[in-house]
Formats: sequence, C-alpha cells, structure tokens
Amino acid sequence: MIDGSILIGAKKRHNDELFYAINPATNNQLAQGFSAATPADVIEACLLAEEACPSFSGLEPSKRAQFIEAVGEAIAAIGDELIETAMAETGLPRARLEGERGRTIGQLNMFAAEVRKGEWLDAVIDPALPNRAPLPRADVRRMNIAVGPVAVFGASNFPLAFSVAGGDTASAFAAGCPVVVKGHPAHPGTGELVARAIQSAVAACGLHAGVFSYLPGTSHALGAALVADPRIKAVGFTGSRSGGLALVQLAAQRKAPIPVYAEMSSINPVIVMPHALAARATALGTAFAASLSLGAGQFCTNPGLVIALDGADLETFITAARAALDAIEPPVMLTPVIHAAYASGVTTLDTNAATSRLSGGQQSALANRCSPALFETTASAFLADEALSTEVFGAAALIVRCRDIAEITHVVRGLEGQLTATLQIDDGDNQAAAHLLPLLQTRVGRVLVNGWPTGVEVTPAMVHGGPFPATSDGRTTSVGTLAMMRFLRPVCFQDVGDVLLPMPLRSTNMWGVPRKVSGTWEPRA
Amino acid sequence: MIDGSILIGAKKRHNDELFYAINPATNNQLAQGFSAATPADVIEACLLAEEACPSFSGLEPSKRAQFIEAVGEAIAAIGDELIETAMAETGLPRARLEGERGRTIGQLNMFAAEVRKGEWLDAVIDPALPNRAPLPRADVRRMNIAVGPVAVFGASNFPLAFSVAGGDTASAFAAGCPVVVKGHPAHPGTGELVARAIQSAVAACGLHAGVFSYLPGTSHALGAALVADPRIKAVGFTGSRSGGLALVQLAAQRKAPIPVYAEMSSINPVIVMPHALAARATALGTAFAASLSLGAGQFCTNPGLVIALDGADLETFITAARAALDAIEPPVMLTPVIHAAYASGVTTLDTNAATSRLSGGQQSALANRCSPALFETTASAFLADEALSTEVFGAAALIVRCRDIAEITHVVRGLEGQLTATLQIDDGDNQAAAHLLPLLQTRVGRVLVNGWPTGVEVTPAMVHGGPFPATSDGRTTSVGTLAMMRFLRPVCFQDVGDVLLPMPLRSTNMWGVPRKVSGTWEPRA
Repeated sequence: MIDGSILIGAKKRHNDELFYAINPATNNQLAQGFSAATPADVIEACLLAEEACPSFSGLEPSKRAQFIEAVGEAIAAIGDELIETAMAETGLPRARLEGERGRTIGQLNMFAAEVRKGEWLDAVIDPALPNRAPLPRADVRRMNIAVGPVAVFGASNFPLAFSVAGGDTASAFAAGCPVVVKGHPAHPGTGELVARAIQSAVAACGLHAGVFSYLPGTSHALGAALVADPRIKAVGFTGSRSGGLALVQLAAQRKAPIPVYAEMSSINPVIVMPHALAARATALGTAFAASLSLGAGQFCTNPGLVIALDGADLETFITAARAALDAIEPPVMLTPVIHAAYASGVTTLDTNAATSRLSGGQQSALANRCSPALFETTASAFLADEALSTEVFGAAALIVRCRDIAEITHVVRGLEGQLTATLQIDDGDNQAAAHLLPLLQTRVGRVLVNGWPTGVEVTPAMVHGGPFPATSDGRTTSVGTLAMMRFLRPVCFQDVGDVLLPMPLRSTNMWGVPRKVSGTWEPRA
Repeated sequence: MIDGSILIGAKKRHNDELFYAINPATNNQLAQGFSAATPADVIEACLLAEEACPSFSGLEPSKRAQFIEAVGEAIAAIGDELIETAMAETGLPRARLEGERGRTIGQLNMFAAEVRKGEWLDAVIDPALPNRAPLPRADVRRMNIAVGPVAVFGASNFPLAFSVAGGDTASAFAAGCPVVVKGHPAHPGTGELVARAIQSAVAACGLHAGVFSYLPGTSHALGAALVADPRIKAVGFTGSRSGGLALVQLAAQRKAPIPVYAEMSSINPVIVMPHALAARATALGTAFAASLSLGAGQFCTNPGLVIALDGADLETFITAARAALDAIEPPVMLTPVIHAAYASGVTTLDTNAATSRLSGGQQSALANRCSPALFETTASAFLADEALSTEVFGAAALIVRCRDIAEITHVVRGLEGQLTATLQIDDGDNQAAAHLLPLLQTRVGRVLVNGWPTGVEVTPAMVHGGPFPATSDGRTTSVGTLAMMRFLRPVCFQDVGDVLLPMPLRSTNMWGVPRKVSGTWEPRA
C-alpha cells in the first residue's frame, strides 16, 4: 500500500527527488523511496484547501463529526501494517505503538463528540431593542467560524498521536479547517498510511478533496513555503524550540501574519518537598527514574529537573533513582539526529563546571541507544546559568540541591514557562506547597501533585501547553477538547436576516446547538 | 484636581520633564504641565503590578465585580470637570463626551456582571477513574487564570471609552489582571482624572495598590519600555497600524514574547448591491455621508470604501452623498498630528492618477478642521494599487465603480482584513448576497446588513476585531464580554487536593461558578 506518494486532495503524485527512512535500531536505510514535495505542490495543496473551506467549515456538526470518526475507522482498518511500519521507522515497541494508535483514534472520537455538542460555536444572540432610548439597538449575533486552512507539522516522538492524524489535525478538522500536513521525514511510511486513511475518509464522506493534503519531505524550505503560503491561516507544530521559533518568525514576516501554535520545550520540574522526601525517598527516587526513562525519555513532559532539599533524604532518593536507571538496558532513540542531540546535551552537562554526574547508566554498542544520565547542581549555580535550564531531549535530568524552602522558591521563581510542574508532598508540606502553588501556576500549563508528568490524559480538562518557551502561545492547549478553539475565531452578524445568516444563528435552531439569547442559555430541544 | 501627576500604585509623583496638551480647535497650548513618566517609573509600576497579581487574580468574583463597579462610580463622581477637560483636550462636543462617559461606565458594569457569572473561568472537572483499564485515570481539573500584568495604550479618538478606563482596562481588570496604562499625550488631563478615579477605587476596595498605575508621556521609548518589561504579560492597544505593528515587533523580540492585542486599521467596505441601489440611491447616499462624517470620520469603523455597480443609480447615490458632505461645516479633528495625517492622506488620493475627486466639502480657515473628501476609482485600479486600500483616518472615502457582480466579488476577494463589512441589499439582492457573505465573513470581524458600521454596541455578541491588519490577533475582540478572554489562559490541576486547589475547582463550589463535571454542566445552586 505504501508507494512513496505525495497526496494532494484526491490525487497522488510522485516526484523525482526521493528520500528514505532509517531504522534507528540498526541505522539501516529502509528500502522504500518517498517523493519529496515541492513548493509547487504546496501551492496546489493550499489552493485546494482554500477551495474546500466554505463547504467544510459550513458543514452540519453531525456530518463533520462523522467524517472525523471515519478517519479513525480508516486508521484502524490499516491493521498491523501501520504498527509494523511505525516500529521499523521509529524503534518504538509494538505495545507502545498499539497504545498510541488507540489514543489517536480515541482522540478523533473525542473531537467528533465535541463537534456534535456545538458548544465550540459559542453562539450568542442579542436581539434588537427597537424601543431603546436614546437609540434603538440593532440585532447582534455572534458565533465562531473556522480560521481557514491549517498547516500541521507532526512530531517524531508520537508518529501517530502527534503526527498526520494527531491532535493538531483532529482539532483543526473539528473546527472546520482543511489541513495540509508537512509529513515528518523520520516516519514517512507511517505518515503515508495515515494520510491515505484520511484521504479515503474524505472521499467516503463526499467532502471536497481539498480538506486534506499530505506533503512529505525533508527540507526546511518545504515547511517554510507552507507557512508562508497566503492561504494558510494557522500553524500547528510539535517539535524543537529552534524549529518552532523558526516557524513563528516566518509567520510573523508574512504580509498578513498568522498564529503559530508551537509546542516546543519544557524541562518539567519536580519539586520534592521535605516531608514527602523524608517519608518516601526510595519510592520517589524509583518512580522518578521510571518516569524519566519511559520511552527513552522522549516525551515533552519528561521530568528533566528535580528541585529538593539537600541532605540525607535526598541521598536516599538519588541512590534509588541511580539503581533504577543503572538497571535499564539502553533503549533505542527515535532518530540518529535525536540521539546525537541527546549525546551532545549530556556532554554539555558533563563539561559544565557547576554540575556533577550522579549516574551514567549502562552503555551500549548498538546504534542510537539512550544511556540515562543524572546530574546534580546547586540552586545558586542553577540560577546563575541559563544553560542548565535547557531541555535535553531524552532520559537526562538535573537535580538541584536547595538549602531551604526559600531557595526552592527562588529556583521556582527563576523557571521559564513549562508544560508541567509536579509537587511531591506529604501532609506536613501543605503549608509550604500552598505558597508555591500560586507561583507554579503562573509558569506552567499543568500542575500535578504526587504524580509524574509523563502520560497526558486526552480529556476535556487537560492542558498540554504553557507559557513561553513551553509553547509559542500560552493561551492554548494541543491536547484535550480545548485544542480546537485554536482554529476558530468569532464573527458578528448585525441585522443579518435569517436567509443570509449561518445556520446556527437563524431564528429556528435547526442544528440544535447551545445558544445564549439575551444573556441566558436557551433550553435544549 | 489635575496637577500633572504620574500615578504609581497608591503614590503620585512629579518628574522634571513636562509636556502639555493642545486645544485642537485653536492650536493653543493648555496651561497645565504634565509630568512625563520615565523608564524607572515603568519598572516600579510593573514590579508593583506583579506583586498585586496573586491577590487580585484570586479575588472572589463578586469582590472583583464590586471593584470594577466602584471604578465606574468614581468616574461618574468626577462630574463636569471630566467633560470640560476632555472637550478642551480633544475638540469633541459635550454631547458626544457625555455619551461616551455613559458608555464607559456601562462597559465597566457589563464586565462586572460578566465577572459575577463566572463563565469566564471555564471550570472543567474530569474526576479520577481509579478502575479504568489498563491504567487508572487521574483527577484532572482546569480553569482559566489571569495572564498577569497588562499594559494598556489608549486611543486618542475615544478619550474615555478606549483610554485609561476603557475597554482594554475594564476587560483586563475583569480577567483579574493588574493594569499599567501608558497615558495618551493628547488628553493627559482627562487621563489623569480617570486614573485618579481608578486609584481611589483600588483604595476604597482595599485592593493591593499595584492593581493600577498610570504613566503619562509622549515618547515612544516610554511605551517601548513598558512592553519590554518582563513582568508585563499582555498588551492592549488601539491606534495606528504603524504604532500597533511597532508594539507587536517589540513584544515578539522579548526573551519571553507576549500577545499584543492591537486594533489598528480598517476601511470598512460598504457593498451597495444593485437592487438596493436602484430602490434607494438617494437615501443610501445621504446615510452614507452621515456615517462617513460622524465625529469628523474619526472612528475605527468609519466607512472608507464603497463598492457598487457603476451606472445611473450610482450617480444618484454620489449626488446625494456629495450634497450631504458639502453641507457640513468642517468639524475640528482630535489633534494637529491627526489633522496633518488626514490632509496628507487626502493629498495622496488627489495625486493618484487612478482616482478622481467627487467632493471636496467646505474648506475652513480654522485650525485642524476636517473637510470631507470623496473619491472614485475603478475596480481594476483599486485591485492594482495597494495604496488605495490604505486607511485615511477622517472623513475620506473612495467609491469603487464595478461593471458587474463578478467585479464586486473580485474587489471583495482583494480586501485585507477589516473590522466590518456592510451589505446594502433589497430582496432582489439576496441571491448575490448569499454568495458574497461567506466570502465577507472570512475577511471581517462584523458583517452588517442595511446598517452603517459606525456605532459599536457594547453587548455580548459584539465583535470589534477582525483579521490582520484590522487587528494583530483576529481571534479576539476589544469590545463586548468576549474581550476579557484575551487576558486569561487555561491551567490544569492533576490530583491536586482540595486544600491546594483554587476555590473554583474545589469539591464544594463555594463561589457557585458554572462547572462542567464529567462532561455535563453542574446544576446551579
């Protein structure tokens, strides 16, 4: 089924320039060649996406929901070829990829359900007040509409859940936006399979073919052309800080700038409070090591920073963490590039005069293996050197030894924006935690107590976002139902009659969407 | 009561450097000198604002609402000094300023009511699922929190409703954000009176003094220092395109970039459809002239572009518009700078080879008077020259003569983002309008039918925003209840116990705010 195609609307195309995936477990190039999309392909896909906008964004919610569910069904129907292709391209184990497939389909179904509810329209009707003095009031109505075609850049670390049909695509579809995906070059076969599934769902649902296009490729120029295309109205991105910032800059330089939702960089501090540390240092150290090393540490929410009181309890924590990390047979990382960046990041910490290595983990002669690495430093050294706040993507973490709670607070105050922060507390820590929590919430998208940040629930209350540099737009989330609001904007209709009004705002609520009329929610039909 | 003070929290201060307001009706400098704030004042105000954040953002909704209402009461209590000061500083007539004062207080009261409702918290609770397989689900809760201190830059054209206590300040307060206002140098006395009213309300309500500071001044450096201050987390601005874009660029260059909500530039196209034009050309021409010349055309929503079928009916429309415009005794504009820019914009249109002057209006020997100016061009000329889409702030408009509906559609397709677009239609125009409307709604924040865009209702359904360059962020509005959402962001709390949770998310809903629990809204207490 995989033949290295570019998919533009209903068409598939091959270009002369080919690229290849690499099996990171062996560094061997895989056999299938993949066409690299060109700037001309970008223009064609974006024109088609623009054409698809009116019909797709105006679809009745139940019809758009059916389409989103059909995407999930088509992904399920690919079967084991999807899992095996992803395993070969990413080095991720079968169980993880099967779980991720379930999460991806579940996420599509969650958005479909949310679309049906219609709350995202935020329909508000303020009827005319013809007798108001001194001037009558016009009839004013408002609802959210799709922003237009969205460019999606998937991540390498979730080849299904944050890639071609991942959260950005699902939430853009939910909002009524056609999507043009720049395929990630690390998993092009996986990407093509999923792209074909979406293409088949578009056709099966009788939608305009421009609702979806898939442009694989390896060059920055391809992504740049996509973000610069005047028909693109928003960008979803998950990846590195440098990659995200490059897209933000490109989008800002357009004649008409557009929002970029880039999820970029986070070291996810874990603050281990004294009573918790005293009560369960060993258990916390072991659990921390498990969270740090999960999936070779290749999660945005990987706990890369531990902030704790120095002393005997912290030594116990470190001993347990080191024992757990040293027991790990080094897992393969996603790509040679990611492995090289990890090795370089670890070397940087090793050569920093203010840090010491606590654990080196097992070494491996096999390709692209991740040896967990644990470092320590002092609070003053951490606060003095921004380099120590830099994310090392993989299973590396830094423990910041603090003299007292005041120093813990100083370190927290010095933190950049983060996706998550975690407090480990016992009852005796509540008072100190109550002071820290208001500070933490100004710096993160999600605060956890006595958990671990890896593992992001796909649920309405989730926020997978946070202040810069965790994301480029701290008002948003890329996981959970709220993610679709990134691709909507409000439009007001003043004295527009029923014939011309969009369906959700007409006198008769044909779609049965929630509406606030004169300040009060209409009873549901 | 006015003494030219800078207000930083509860303190007032005078600096050596003074500036003066000008009465635009006479070009005479007014007597009162006003202290110009310095970069040191910026730092002090921002530090204080940051200090005020935890208590102000965590206030019970009813308490914050009381404060916002107290601001309105304090403004009302200033009495006629406010109106007379504003008249002298802006040249605006008494009735307009009294109306604007009512609008400003009404807007504060609207936000107070919205704060009390608590919907802005968007509180969502997804309870733990301890028995879920294969893994239990944590307890996940989400609510909106204030982004932090907000910098507000008021507009010269609404010295009350879009200035010190205008929509940006009111909506930031509503969201729980302390505000630092950069006072507009054209109406410093008006600004100081209102700033003192806010300062007194902060004190009367027992709030942290850092909730509000007022920094008057004339230099770009002052505004730049404010936007660059790391404690400022968002910016509200109403003014010129160049001014707005400068702030956007400054905010993007910060170590941690922040959102800038700049309302900048719009020519507010009015599309007069053929049946409407045939049925009521004279009435439409007269009404258009009234909207164009209202307040010397100094409204963001001023109709600066008319798109219509060429022919005898359009001549009738033009004749009526010209007669109405020629009857106007030229009103005074807000400032010498605005008047000079208007004169320059009119000259640019006069010297453009593709435009002709239809009406020159009466001329005046008095200072800073606005002679209405009406121009015409062809659709092809309009589409070929971006300069013809440039806003001329004041009572100048361009009529685009189109050969047919297809050419009208082409012109609409060529439009940049706008605050508003207006359709003038009769029944016979419905079919053509139904094709135009989906196109229009992608380009504007508000679509009107058979009305005029000047006059922006302060009501929940209002959108005073639109795609770039109408604003720098087309997902937002600066008027209406939705404006407060600009200054909020979601935060998620995972497994955080009642003791540490913010009040709205605790088990017992002490504040009685609307909450969605397990996907369903809780019944109101």
